[in-house]
Amino acid sequence: MELTALDNIKIVTAKESKITSVDFDNLSFGNVFTDHMLVCDYDNGVWGDPEIKPYEPFTMDPSSRVFHYGQAIFEGMKAYKDENNDVWLYRPDQNHERFNKSAVRLAMPEIPEEIFIDGLKKLIEIEQKWVKKGKGNSLYIRPFMIATGHGVVASPSNQYRFCIILSPASAYYSGDVKVVIADHYSRAANGGIGAAKAAGNYSAQFYPTKLANQEGFQQIIWTDDATHTKLEEAGTMNVFFRINDTLYTAPTSERILDGVTRKSIIDIAERDGIDVDVRPVLVSEIVEAAEKGTLKEIFGAGTAAVISPISGFSYKDTYYELPKLQNSFASEIKEKLTNIQYKLAEDTFGWTVKI
Amino acid sequence: MELTALDNIKIVTAKESKITSVDFDNLSFGNVFTDHMLVCDYDNGVWGDPEIKPYEPFTMDPSSRVFHYGQAIFEGMKAYKDENNDVWLYRPDQNHERFNKSAVRLAMPEIPEEIFIDGLKKLIEIEQKWVKKGKGNSLYIRPFMIATGHGVVASPSNQYRFCIILSPASAYYSGDVKVVIADHYSRAANGGIGAAKAAGNYSAQFYPTKLANQEGFQQIIWTDDATHTKLEEAGTMNVFFRINDTLYTAPTSERILDGVTRKSIIDIAERDGIDVDVRPVLVSEIVEAAEKGTLKEIFGAGTAAVISPISGFSYKDTYYELPKLQNSFASEIKEKLTNIQYKLAEDTFGWTVKI
Repeated sequence: MELTALDNIKIVTAKESKITSVDFDNLSFGNVFTDHMLVCDYDNGVWGDPEIKPYEPFTMDPSSRVFHYGQAIFEGMKAYKDENNDVWLYRPDQNHERFNKSAVRLAMPEIPEEIFIDGLKKLIEIEQKWVKKGKGNSLYIRPFMIATGHGVVASPSNQYRFCIILSPASAYYSGDVKVVIADHYSRAANGGIGAAKAAGNYSAQFYPTKLANQEGFQQIIWTDDATHTKLEEAGTMNVFFRINDTLYTAPTSERILDGVTRKSIIDIAERDGIDVDVRPVLVSEIVEAAEKGTLKEIFGAGTAAVISPISGFSYKDTYYELPKLQNSFASEIKEKLTNIQYKLAEDTFGWTVKI
Repeated sequence: MELTALDNIKIVTAKESKITSVDFDNLSFGNVFTDHMLVCDYDNGVWGDPEIKPYEPFTMDPSSRVFHYGQAIFEGMKAYKDENNDVWLYRPDQNHERFNKSAVRLAMPEIPEEIFIDGLKKLIEIEQKWVKKGKGNSLYIRPFMIATGHGVVASPSNQYRFCIILSPASAYYSGDVKVVIADHYSRAANGGIGAAKAAGNYSAQFYPTKLANQEGFQQIIWTDDATHTKLEEAGTMNVFFRINDTLYTAPTSERILDGVTRKSIIDIAERDGIDVDVRPVLVSEIVEAAEKGTLKEIFGAGTAAVISPISGFSYKDTYYELPKLQNSFASEIKEKLTNIQYKLAEDTFGWTVKI
């Protein structure tokens, strides 16, 4: 293993590992955590020394600003183990960069690479036994930052905590995903925080999603809030549409997250000769294509599920079923992308980073 | 003191009070808390028994959903002491009702009146020495609810904590408030959570407000995100405009909070013969009125400051100074409203509730 350049890190190891109590064949996503976490506190304008320590509860004042003003951001990443037992990260620079963009938008301090990247590498080095071999298995990585300053005053905190926790994950089967196209609720405003991985963006979706669930849909395809005519994201993922043999996806914007999986899909598709058209995608053209039979696929793209195929969509009370394809772009690109992640195919892009 | 109907409350009193260490002449808003808080936990679909206990830190798992998905709501209220040493709440039913509306929008459980209202009364009964006499003095009340369930899964929590903390406050002088009218950033989307007192709405404002501060403005007047032509809120307050002798304020909507101070101002103004026109207020008409000299006042309305006069506004790099009036509606209505709150004038509306 390569050593990291992190000199000032304090490491306290757990007395015993809880790994033997974990049933790796029946993991529920995001619910089991490894033995250690990385914690780093910010105060008085500077980040303190990062610490790797046993996973344990935080002690938080009831007036901590994260509770009252939602000043909190996160990232989602994964580590993979290859056939040689080497552990790999996937495009961690992209997550670090986006984390800092989210930080700026939420008036929080940016975090240096030594803490985010080198700290993460050191943490995973310690937790490498939690990364299981085999395609589909991974270690889900959750870096996050919360405002820990006290006081019920609606202004940015002076204290923050950055933390990384890790959760072992197996292949993510989302089942049959039917979606409804939003015509009332929205996830993001123009000039809002939709492009940031801000905590508040997610809870805002819970109620509309609950309503969709009650009508038999698993997710919502979000549209622009002003006109509800442009298709922007699917649940907490970016979204792609295949009409004939061209892939369409909306450009990133203030309302749309710059997804790492999204841009990887675009790059792989373009490398392999699939036409990708990045432009606003209208509800009307997708409905029309569905009616004409030229709409072949819709799929979500995100770290947790990688690619999540959508089997049909509802718009204004009409349900449109998508065809079941033998040669779907979703399967083909997912296979290529995960082969890169698991080091089963050549990484022509230089996306994988060895721990 | 009236006894509350709350039978199942557990009360653990603090060993000693920290009140003697508090400098009541130099209170900084929202930073000092009283000796006790009310806590009530929700699990398995039911609220447990509320507990009043010494103010102390929470123990929170790093994967608690409030940290990752911002599932958190709050209210702001005040208690006042009259000349007879009786303590009064102001329209607590309105805050309870709005809290539950926020809860529904954030897919959180509603909280019963016995816990929110009766629990609050019992807590303030115990903390009554923290409510200081004298106009301007009050006890700021912060009820809030956070998602405490574990797991980095973007779905509603199964566990929640409701809590009330109290902070002594003195008269809130906002100083000279100059505002900038938003023409890019926004606080709320159509179909979003702007009408809820959701934590995430507040941190979303921090960065644009910081930019405004750097240009010499204390607050932002938020406009609708789609067209930036309608004036909607000022900072974290509702906003009123006086043109000639008529008050204008936007109707509440999905984007605009149904403020208790806002509706109290409308009721007092209408009772006392001031014309109030509740309708969308356009940036263009306010700019035009400012140019013609018919724009007399702009003021924010909220629990913390009650009424916060605005001295001028900037729009597209032009600054419009407002006149300094002898007979301002802001001062007149603030005087009438606070006289009701401090029991110095007859409460013809039945808004005040004795503890």
